[in-house]
Amino acid sequence: MNTQQTQTKIVNGVNVTQLFEMIDNIKEKGEIAKFTFRAQNKWIDGTENHTTVSDYYGACKTHTRSKPHTFVKDEPQILLGKDNGANPVEYLLAGLAGCVTTSLVSHAAARGVKIDSIESTLEGDIDLHGLLQLDDTNPGYQGINISFKIESDASDETLQELIDLAKNASPVANTVSRPTPVNVKLIR
Amino acid sequence: MNTQQTQTKIVNGVNVTQLFEMIDNIKEKGEIAKFTFRAQNKWIDGTENHTTVSDYYGACKTHTRSKPHTFVKDEPQILLGKDNGANPVEYLLAGLAGCVTTSLVSHAAARGVKIDSIESTLEGDIDLHGLLQLDDTNPGYQGINISFKIESDASDETLQELIDLAKNASPVANTVSRPTPVNVKLIR
Repeated sequence: MNTQQTQTKIVNGVNVTQLFEMIDNIKEKGEIAKFTFRAQNKWIDGTENHTTVSDYYGACKTHTRSKPHTFVKDEPQILLGKDNGANPVEYLLAGLAGCVTTSLVSHAAARGVKIDSIESTLEGDIDLHGLLQLDDTNPGYQGINISFKIESDASDETLQELIDLAKNASPVANTVSRPTPVNVKLIR
Repeated sequence: MNTQQTQTKIVNGVNVTQLFEMIDNIKEKGEIAKFTFRAQNKWIDGTENHTTVSDYYGACKTHTRSKPHTFVKDEPQILLGKDNGANPVEYLLAGLAGCVTTSLVSHAAARGVKIDSIESTLEGDIDLHGLLQLDDTNPGYQGINISFKIESDASDETLQELIDLAKNASPVANTVSRPTPVNVKLIR
């Protein structure tokens, strides 16, 4: 009789035992790693629209959340809106901040590096000439800078290594920094 | 004495008069078109972190909203979180949906094309091999597909032209579909 208990290891609030189990499962059956994320969007009026995310596919099945998450997007008055929500380029910053942070926390946890706190500031420049099609300026962010302030006993060298790894492994940072195809189609 | 009233033209909820005034102002003084968007992010625990957006720079000055917008990000249980919020790659979809929709509505308004409703569905595939650094798979979206259902008296040809224009002019779609630099640095 095996009386040994499985001990759950939690670092930085991340269940490292579950993380390593997931990695083992993926190594055994690659199909588990395939995820599809989805969103439904509805235009309200002017610059306001709402997005709902509820279900996603992953680990070989579709998962539906008990409660969907919704997002209100709008523009400030200066950009012709009513400021009923943050604007889409700010949502992109929120996604990027969250993704690199979670990547950082998880990779640190996997290496046993304890983190006490992380705060970051993101900033990106946009020139409206592009959006308004007034010249050939890119409509998007010219670049996005993220500054991390991290409290941890780890050395600056370890933390620098972790933020570089976090960025390189982050799905949102990767989507932004490489040319990711966006396809639009009209359905009836 | 000039007794002529300025008539405000609103199409699709977009103030077209203000839009054309903005374009005229930018043509006169290009500096007005320069915007900087910002976000502050704070790690809470595990896969949960919160972003706040409050101020931004544009039209030659910094604007601070009376009330900041906040975002809660987390992962579902299967991805080691507590599902306290949508996850970062879903925030990216929300931003993309909102940006292409607002671009579509505004470009239609500028052309005098009336839109009755817009709904869209977004979908993107991610393979966790990349995030987990198990092989050289890209960690990000392999591609993102957006399907638009639009009610309008305009012809399918006009609507197809508008969704292509909306995508090409959209700051988020442009940021995603071209290689946009993401820079990370550690501050003390």
